[in-house]
Amino acid sequence: MANTAVHGTTAGYVSPDITAIAPGIWKLRFGTPETFTPLQCRERQADMAGLATLPEAPAPPFDVSRARGRITASRTVVYLPGAGADDEIYGFGLDPACYRQKGLRKELTVAAAPVTQTGASHGPVPFYLSTLGYGVYVDTARVPVVEVARLAAKSSAEPPAAGETALKTSAAELYAPPQSQEQGEVVFDLRGNGQGVEVFVFAGPQMRQAVQRYNLFAGGGCLPPLWGLGMKYRTWTQADQAMAMEHARSMRRHKIPADMFGLEPGWQTHAYSCSLAWDASRFPDPDGLVADLRQLGLRVNLWEHAYVHPSSPLFERLLTRSGDYLVWGGLVVDFADPEASRIFAAYHEDELVAKGIAGFKADECDRQPITDATPFNYPYCSVFPSGIDGEQMSQLYGYLYQRSLYSVFRRRNQRTWGDVRATTALAAPLPFCLYSDAYAFDEYLRQLLNASFAGLLWSPEVRDAGSLEEYLNRLAMSSFAPQLCLNPWFIPHPLWQQYNAAKNSRGELLPAAEQERVAARMRDIVQLRMQLLPYLYAGFRRYQSEGLPPVRSLLLEFPADTRLRDIDNQFLFGDHLLVAPFMGPGCEREVYLPRGTDWCDFRTGERHAGGSEVRVAAPAGDIPVFVSTPCLLPLAAPLEHVADDAVFDITVRVYGQDPACFDLFEDDGVSFDYEQGRFNRVRLTWADGKGTATRTGTYPAARYNISGWERVGT
Amino acid sequence: MANTAVHGTTAGYVSPDITAIAPGIWKLRFGTPETFTPLQCRERQADMAGLATLPEAPAPPFDVSRARGRITASRTVVYLPGAGADDEIYGFGLDPACYRQKGLRKELTVAAAPVTQTGASHGPVPFYLSTLGYGVYVDTARVPVVEVARLAAKSSAEPPAAGETALKTSAAELYAPPQSQEQGEVVFDLRGNGQGVEVFVFAGPQMRQAVQRYNLFAGGGCLPPLWGLGMKYRTWTQADQAMAMEHARSMRRHKIPADMFGLEPGWQTHAYSCSLAWDASRFPDPDGLVADLRQLGLRVNLWEHAYVHPSSPLFERLLTRSGDYLVWGGLVVDFADPEASRIFAAYHEDELVAKGIAGFKADECDRQPITDATPFNYPYCSVFPSGIDGEQMSQLYGYLYQRSLYSVFRRRNQRTWGDVRATTALAAPLPFCLYSDAYAFDEYLRQLLNASFAGLLWSPEVRDAGSLEEYLNRLAMSSFAPQLCLNPWFIPHPLWQQYNAAKNSRGELLPAAEQERVAARMRDIVQLRMQLLPYLYAGFRRYQSEGLPPVRSLLLEFPADTRLRDIDNQFLFGDHLLVAPFMGPGCEREVYLPRGTDWCDFRTGERHAGGSEVRVAAPAGDIPVFVSTPCLLPLAAPLEHVADDAVFDITVRVYGQDPACFDLFEDDGVSFDYEQGRFNRVRLTWADGKGTATRTGTYPAARYNISGWERVGT
Repeated sequence: MANTAVHGTTAGYVSPDITAIAPGIWKLRFGTPETFTPLQCRERQADMAGLATLPEAPAPPFDVSRARGRITASRTVVYLPGAGADDEIYGFGLDPACYRQKGLRKELTVAAAPVTQTGASHGPVPFYLSTLGYGVYVDTARVPVVEVARLAAKSSAEPPAAGETALKTSAAELYAPPQSQEQGEVVFDLRGNGQGVEVFVFAGPQMRQAVQRYNLFAGGGCLPPLWGLGMKYRTWTQADQAMAMEHARSMRRHKIPADMFGLEPGWQTHAYSCSLAWDASRFPDPDGLVADLRQLGLRVNLWEHAYVHPSSPLFERLLTRSGDYLVWGGLVVDFADPEASRIFAAYHEDELVAKGIAGFKADECDRQPITDATPFNYPYCSVFPSGIDGEQMSQLYGYLYQRSLYSVFRRRNQRTWGDVRATTALAAPLPFCLYSDAYAFDEYLRQLLNASFAGLLWSPEVRDAGSLEEYLNRLAMSSFAPQLCLNPWFIPHPLWQQYNAAKNSRGELLPAAEQERVAARMRDIVQLRMQLLPYLYAGFRRYQSEGLPPVRSLLLEFPADTRLRDIDNQFLFGDHLLVAPFMGPGCEREVYLPRGTDWCDFRTGERHAGGSEVRVAAPAGDIPVFVSTPCLLPLAAPLEHVADDAVFDITVRVYGQDPACFDLFEDDGVSFDYEQGRFNRVRLTWADGKGTATRTGTYPAARYNISGWERVGT
Repeated sequence: MANTAVHGTTAGYVSPDITAIAPGIWKLRFGTPETFTPLQCRERQADMAGLATLPEAPAPPFDVSRARGRITASRTVVYLPGAGADDEIYGFGLDPACYRQKGLRKELTVAAAPVTQTGASHGPVPFYLSTLGYGVYVDTARVPVVEVARLAAKSSAEPPAAGETALKTSAAELYAPPQSQEQGEVVFDLRGNGQGVEVFVFAGPQMRQAVQRYNLFAGGGCLPPLWGLGMKYRTWTQADQAMAMEHARSMRRHKIPADMFGLEPGWQTHAYSCSLAWDASRFPDPDGLVADLRQLGLRVNLWEHAYVHPSSPLFERLLTRSGDYLVWGGLVVDFADPEASRIFAAYHEDELVAKGIAGFKADECDRQPITDATPFNYPYCSVFPSGIDGEQMSQLYGYLYQRSLYSVFRRRNQRTWGDVRATTALAAPLPFCLYSDAYAFDEYLRQLLNASFAGLLWSPEVRDAGSLEEYLNRLAMSSFAPQLCLNPWFIPHPLWQQYNAAKNSRGELLPAAEQERVAARMRDIVQLRMQLLPYLYAGFRRYQSEGLPPVRSLLLEFPADTRLRDIDNQFLFGDHLLVAPFMGPGCEREVYLPRGTDWCDFRTGERHAGGSEVRVAAPAGDIPVFVSTPCLLPLAAPLEHVADDAVFDITVRVYGQDPACFDLFEDDGVSFDYEQGRFNRVRLTWADGKGTATRTGTYPAARYNISGWERVGT
């Protein structure tokens, strides 16, 4: 029982019960945890085998006995040692508005839009990383208010320095961020939790390993189906079956690679809330549609949300297993009730997945932010039969919704790749990408980086743009994201026929030659992603088995380069590619190349020393990409889509001297058989001027045909 | 034990224990109330004598047994019957952003700036009014989330009407406010309160009487000193003693009426946080300053805040009686500890009030809003020795701070008139006006109206403007507020010497003749207020004895005129004057004159029927004022300031036929002796073409000399 006295009183601070629960992971227990937390709801158990492969960490990364808790009737508060003046803090989920976190007050609520820099987002996560080389996760489904090294304890009071009495006379001076609070603790305030909480500390030695441990603690990253790494194309919300097919065929005529075809709300008889039933007037033959699209190499993804309209076949089944308030007139499913989750899943299996639907877009499971005074969500005081309350449900709804949908695919030994509008902590195993209405370029990009600190996947959907250049740059950025998605749901004609939304809606299409030119540029950009598909798949394999995010902040890879602490517009794609998107319609930018390795321009082969700044100008869509050198980079001949029996013809680029080997991951790409060991490692090695591919494993077919080696930048 | 079943579960709803506690007031008790609530901290006991004078209300204004509560470990929730489709809801304190409240989600947090329409404000108050003619107060110092007739209960689910299946395809359609929730309850969610709450229901028959009951329940309104109704002028923050005196003398040379002179932070040795000690370099002779200003008829008001700097004499005394975190490096006083409050008060009495300081401006006791991610306040998880938590303290800090300061004046039998940056429920007895940095014209005006629903006083300080016209219009609006305050704290020269802030700062003053012209316009505007001073004082007397706000929404006076439900830019000043400020620099506007009485233009005497709309154009500063007709309106010859022995020479304007009598309130204007009955009623009566003034009471001197009667608009 630590007793840090407040002057004049003895407040009830408690020390944690500390347990080492896995290599490099310690649990700090304060009081009695609540029933509904991400950990209690998690998809998978910790991957102890994966954790065992990480560097040993015999002792906690900081003096965890200095952590304090305080439990009163109204709240549980956890105080964690803060970062030093030279250290920085990252994380807290998908905040679109900020990268560095020190000095901020976060209110980690699920929200459809950012609220300044409070962390309100589609993926608020009470997990943070310190540049001191560790991570901390507070397991709560409450909306935590986190004071990030911001508060000045009373004991820090000190008389002013001489000369400091000068009056401040402007509002800017008076309200400037305080300077004296650099040493403050990280304080989590869990209002409404009067009983206690568990905190998990993840050792490094660097932030990267702390992230890996956190993701492996969550069960390891998801492994998408191979086809999931291709392009997802979503249609106009009002499209009918014939029009949808026409869009698909147009895409194929233009040879724009794509693997997934998404239908927006119009497939249902009622959306907002959802009937989850095919509208026979617009889609008279869903089975035919699925088959016809599959002919074209496209798998169907259906938009939906989990507010169940009275006209839905699910309504009666879920009436007693839902919350006390409606959203858009529909039931709020009590996903914390396993039977409700099962009923929801069973319907999806019988009516949709068994009939060929390959994935879902789980929309609107987030929440309008506090700044929207007329929101639609169920309130925090909602009542659910399972006993979860509205606040916890709001934080967990997206997560539990994903689990319900995912269970269908798990049961069928069939991988899926979905979209989701909200999630929470410990989400790495779930094969869903977050997306957003927030659309500013810098926000889109920052979310990509922040996602990698928190076990999230982010899909910067391409919807609209002010110019063709911006469209191409957005498409290019998306093509270096975990998911590439084109979602112009509000325009009736395919994007390449008219990229101006107003004209598209009016049916004023581009001349045929111009359409072809637009399609060709789009094709170029998507083809580059298809070339990188085996490479990206290998990155996802590391996510799955090692917890290492396939797309990640450069800071995770180059922790010693402190200049990176502020750079939130470049990132690492897989292990070797630094991507620096053009922002908006611009086609020129500065790129900072981290210290610690050399870099080659992916397109020109030009070599640059680490630590240098490079100015790059290029046509729209050809965003700057640099290759860490030395390395081996496998590039495939681009497929138009990934068939179940697809084989990739691969040329390996050899950058620099003595590159390390590179492991491709080979399996059926569609089932969970890899979990039973049915996969191959295809190790690429370069030695003595000669490349070798060595295949080990039990998967019987060869998907990767290594047909050439090509030296670059020597 | 009411049991409103949620399908499939039996949630723990409780019915209230209902007690009639005063005429027209019922207490609904759910569980056990928390220790720290506004009611537990209130300045005064209920004014039972005042309550007894209101219309009888034998039964509650709605079926209070239908109110439900739910108490869980994390929260107390109160469900109150909602308004019907034709009814509206007002209140929730000082929200600058909205007037009608139905359909909104409020989060009633003390905040320095509005957060859309959530009610975050300097004066959030969990009290609302229904146009059905009643008020409801939820006694909590938690930050309540209130769902105002917004939620759709599960039982309201219904299949879509035929034809409703048309797809919504735009974001605007999808997120349009719901239509089906008109009948929803008003739900208060008190997160962190796991034990219970008391709710008070105030009968009408109309909203006006409900407000009166609420204010009398709080102890009745404050009665300012007579001089408090004059103008308050605040100086440049960096002014020294000589410069302050020069400003005061300039004001007197120009004969601009003023009664109070405010010093901004510069009087202290350290501000942000505060030393609360005179800076001898700038103010070598505070006693001399007070005496010299008093010579000019000006009483001194001192700016301060209650974060106590280490260099303050109070620091050591309060070290053990303050919170665990600092604000701006200063202690947060534990005002919930009576001894801390006493120490704070004693210092103010000994060092300041005993030496002639007449009032204080209690700044920064509010809180940066959630949208400011780098705020300065103590967190909700703060610990205070008294046992109050940081959330409760944040909500009550301004209120308790006022009580501490006010106690000094009560003890000395000396009235005061102060400014405060935050307050809460049951604040009517405290003689402090709220003010704000939020400065948009419509917000300023809306707060004036909303304040009258919640027992608050609002001072739309004049600080800055884009033009002389806007300055004059702002001054005119302020001159019809409970307090008239001119606060150009950031400019070194008096406003009338240069109203352009940038030029003022550079010392580029107006030509002398132009200065005189500006001063003359300001003098005109303030003189009108001085003419109305006995009339306004009578209005405050009603506030004090009847709970009726002196400046109020027209809706309180004309409840049957439903057009007023949307009109948030006109108000009633005292009992008879409708004021419709010019917005910004404009000098023309529409005015709606409520049905139920006739109206005369105050300036022209032109008569208009109630229910009509009038377009008014006038010089800047001559904002539209209309007199409800018939009535008696006493106008005084304007004084330059209100001396202790001031006598007002009054002409009574007689509007229309058979006006009701008008009661002036006469007392010493500075002490609390009126509470012992030492006051007179001076009743003005018009009958048979002749006016009479009848004085009754025990106050020995005559302050009001009724020297004439003047017929208008007959």
